Parts: sequence; C-alpha cells; structure tokens
Amino acid sequence: MNKFWRDCPEISRELDIVKNIIKKSVSSSEKYFEESFLPLIEDGGKMLRPAFLLLSARFGQCNQERLYDLAASVEMVHLATLIHDDIIDNSKLRRGCESIQSKYGKEYAVYAGDFLFCKCFSMLSQHDYKTENLRDISRAINRICMGEIKQYHFRYTRKVNLRRYIKIISGKTAALFALSFIAGAKEGNCDEELVKLLGRIGYNIGMAFQCIDDLLDYVGNENELGKSAQSDLKQGYYTLPIIFALEEDKDKELSNILDKSTFNDGDIKKIVSLVKKYNGIEKSMKVAERYTKKAFENIDNLPKCESQYIIKSVVEKLLNRTF
Amino acid sequence: MNKFWRDCPEISRELDIVKNIIKKSVSSSEKYFEESFLPLIEDGGKMLRPAFLLLSARFGQCNQERLYDLAASVEMVHLATLIHDDIIDNSKLRRGCESIQSKYGKEYAVYAGDFLFCKCFSMLSQHDYKTENLRDISRAINRICMGEIKQYHFRYTRKVNLRRYIKIISGKTAALFALSFIAGAKEGNCDEELVKLLGRIGYNIGMAFQCIDDLLDYVGNENELGKSAQSDLKQGYYTLPIIFALEEDKDKELSNILDKSTFNDGDIKKIVSLVKKYNGIEKSMKVAERYTKKAFENIDNLPKCESQYIIKSVVEKLLNRTF
Repeated sequence: MNKFWRDCPEISRELDIVKNIIKKSVSSSEKYFEESFLPLIEDGGKMLRPAFLLLSARFGQCNQERLYDLAASVEMVHLATLIHDDIIDNSKLRRGCESIQSKYGKEYAVYAGDFLFCKCFSMLSQHDYKTENLRDISRAINRICMGEIKQYHFRYTRKVNLRRYIKIISGKTAALFALSFIAGAKEGNCDEELVKLLGRIGYNIGMAFQCIDDLLDYVGNENELGKSAQSDLKQGYYTLPIIFALEEDKDKELSNILDKSTFNDGDIKKIVSLVKKYNGIEKSMKVAERYTKKAFENIDNLPKCESQYIIKSVVEKLLNRTF
Repeated sequence: MNKFWRDCPEISRELDIVKNIIKKSVSSSEKYFEESFLPLIEDGGKMLRPAFLLLSARFGQCNQERLYDLAASVEMVHLATLIHDDIIDNSKLRRGCESIQSKYGKEYAVYAGDFLFCKCFSMLSQHDYKTENLRDISRAINRICMGEIKQYHFRYTRKVNLRRYIKIISGKTAALFALSFIAGAKEGNCDEELVKLLGRIGYNIGMAFQCIDDLLDYVGNENELGKSAQSDLKQGYYTLPIIFALEEDKDKELSNILDKSTFNDGDIKKIVSLVKKYNGIEKSMKVAERYTKKAFENIDNLPKCESQYIIKSVVEKLLNRTF
C-alpha cells in the first residue's frame, strides 16, 4: 500500500501491480544485481508518474495489462534518472536508503541506470505499442538529458537567468510528467484535444513541482527534505531563488560570496539569508503559484469524472505543500 | 573515407552516410553540446558494427534509407557505451582525442551517454520498424550492461574463472556484434536460418575480438593500443591471460602480487612477466583462435556473393592482428 495514495485504494492497488512488474524486470540469476535495485523500487516514493499515467488513461478505454507495462516503463525511466542523478550529485542517500552510487560505486551506478533505461524499451517492445509511444518516450528522455546537461554546463555561472532556468526544468522535470499524462491518454485512445490538455496538465504540474522543490532547498531542513539542504548550491547549481535574489543584489553582497571557489557552512548560511532578504523565495513562490494555477485551470477543463477529481485532489496535496 | 574500409569503397561511402546521420542526430541549438560529440563521431573508428549491419542486409533486399538509420542506431549504442566506459575506466583518451569524461567531466559524460542511448530509440521510432528490431536492440543493450556490471562486480577477485569471463565478454562485446548482423539480416528480410547464421558469425567475431583485445593488453605497448597498457589490470579487471596464468601459479607468486591493494609499475611488470611465464598469453590466443575458426566456418557457409567475400576479408584483417 502506497501511503501517498491511501485515499485512492484503487490507484494504490494498481501501483503495487506496476511495482511488481518493475521488480520482475530486474530479476536476474545474479542476486547481487537484483538486490541492488530493490531498496529503490520497494520504497518506491510516491510513484507520481505511473499514477498520473493510469489516471490519464481512465479518460478513455484500454487494455489494462499493456497499460501497467507502459506505467512501469515510465517509472523505470524515472528510476534510471534518479540513479544517474545520484552519481552527479554524489548523493549518499536516496529516499532514506543508501544510494546505489554510494553503496556500489559510481561505476556500478552508471550501468545500473543504463540497464533500467533499456529495460524500459524492452518492456515497450513486448507489446505492439504504437511507434508514437516509443517516439514520445525516447524524446522525453532526450529532453531530460538535455535539461540535466544544461544544468551541469551552467553550474557556477551567473549565466543562468529565468529563461534558461525554465528551459532546464522543463526538460529535466516537466517532460516526464507531461509524457506520463500523454502516454496514458494515448493508450486510452482519448481524442487529440484531450491528449493535449492532459499533456499541458502534466507540464504545468512538473514545472510547479520543480520550482517548489528548488525553493524548499532554501526553507526546509535536512530531515524534512531527506537530502542535504542546499546541496544544489554546494554543487554550483543556481536555481530560481538565487536567480531572483541576484536581481536585487545591487551591492554585490550575494554575488561576491558566489564568486568563492568553495562554500563553508557560514557562507551557505549567509547565502540563504541573503536569498531571503532579496525576496528570492517570495518571487520563486509566485512562479510556482503561476504554474499551479495553470494546472488547476487545465484540470477544471477536463471531463467531470472520478479521475478528474482524484487528479485535482492529488495536485492540491502535492503543490500546496508550501502555500 | 574510412581508412579501414579503403578497399571497399561502396561500404566506405555508406559509412559516411551513416556518420552524417549520427552527426545530425546530435545537432542542437546548444553548440557546446553538439561539439562535445563531434571528435568521437568524426574519427569514428572502424565503424565495424554498422558496416557488418550493412553487409548483412545485402544478403537480402531492403529500403536503404531505413537501413542507414538502423545502422546509425547500432553505432550510437556503441558510442554511448564508449562514453560510459570511459567514465568507469577513468580514460583520458579515446581514439587519440581527449575523452568526453576527461574534457567535460564525468557528470556530463553520464548524460551524454544517456542521450545517445535514447537517440538510438528515437531514431528507431521514426520508421515503422518491426517491434522485433526494437526488442533485439534493447535486449542487446541490456546484455552489454549486465556484462559490464558483472565485470565490475568481480573486479579485484579471483572469482573470475573462464566460464564467468566468457559470460562477461559475450555480454559486453559479442551481443552488439551479433545484433548488428541480425538486425541487418532481418531488415533485409533474410530467411530465419540465414539470420541465425549471420548472428552466429557476429557472436564469434565479437568473442574473438574481445579475447584478442584483452591479450593485447599484455603484449602491446601504449602507443600501439592507443590506451594505457595494462589499464584493465590496474582497475582490478582480471581478463583471460590472468585467468589462465593463475591456473599454473602453483607457488602463488602471481596470486600474492594480485593480493596487494595497489600495483606500482614494478608490480605490473612482474605480473606481465608471470602471465607470460605461466602461458597466459598462449592459452588466451588458443581461445581467440577457436572463436576465429568458428567465425570462418560460419562465413564459409554463407551464400557466395560479394558481401560474403568482404566479410571474410575484413574478419581476416581484424582477427589476424596477432597470429
């Protein structure tokens, strides 16, 4: 039973099926291999992407078995990006457990991520999915990679402005949310307009989700977030709160600290306080609110049904975590 | 013009087309991104896999445009594994140029490899390829990952025996050679038996190729190989020559050096001389010869045509580099 979905027993039950498909796909005669994935899969987080895919498909009609495999594919792409993200971020923990890169080494994690990426495509090739679905998924992954590469390329530089930030997160986060809605809707044989509307919902949820995630780095504490606070900052990733704060940093107070080659704890505290002083958090919230508002407007335009109601209440729970 | 293929102008011309398709697939508005791939693509090595795919397809008939995209996909998978391999091996050089991981950082290289993996699938989704082709390719990549993971898992251990070594290289190398032949043959609509025969040729070439590569680590010098000699050894990868030498290492002379946590240059020299003394190279050559012989037997069973002749002469050039 997935805690996040306890109010939706049907979705929770379906997510368990999806989870078992993923577990089965990494099963291997090499036990160490199988076991390395299990903590990540078992404590599967909220499984938002497959859940949205399942909910989206309910606006039409489809074969459930194919649908579950499709949902598993999308989640496997997400898990693969998490495994590779942890290499880049040097993260010790993932969802409260030791990350694959920390436990088995970065080398192992590179191939473990590759394995999951490709398992997603082997899964898709089992059924006679439309080539369109395959194209959508591979394009979404390409967008994720480009987003991550851009983010990495522009680290430690003041070149990340609002426009670039939006491009980065629309790739690294929103693309997979949008895909989840679109793939579900297409598999459910929804009409083109409904597919587009659901895709927009996914995009706006993804954008709001990432903005909130980034601003929580400046307000949350280590325990609340489950990952080191300000870790992005230490790695030179200047996210929305910094971008906005720099706009009001006339005396170059913040800018001067960011120019240092490494940050000590004192620097981090000072940066956080300057980000607050220069309205970085407030303004970031405004952006998140804007995407949230758009998502709700889109959701209101969906056909009225149980699925629409669930999507709405989940998005409320998800995006209202700060305001 | 690809030097390795100068005696086959037609294949050489087709490989240039394939290379341009790959270049186009990484073209991007972000110039730094596009440029990071170019050295690897431009000096495209021998392009064995796409060449074998093209040659294999000639045993039947097919649409050339689709075929070139398929050949590009297979080469992109190979390039993606090279990019990720260089992260794992910490390689400074790749084909005489600075590797992506060295020039742009490991983080960048993780996503650059992911990007190429997925571009392969976006490429495949452009055409209405048989789902079978997709399944074959994703399975081959899964086999490559498993091979690499196994190799990594068993590093610095004496647990790698001949059986395990064969399993490792059949995944990390032979799978993609076999796939290249199979995908070409299937796209050429060859009958099932011919597809299988071509697949076996690819498998045996791949196995022989890797055995030779591994034994050359113990006989070649740095300049000849284009990568640091004995690099595998320094990373704890015990390949065929070591496995055989250990069988005759009754006094544990070799075994005791391998037990050390790091090897200095003197240790490496000693290991290499012990490997020679205990017939590690000789016995490895025998294994390589066995696979080479099988490949030639298979090739002789192919329908007599220009393609058969080219495959035979290329395999002679490729596998006779040591004996």
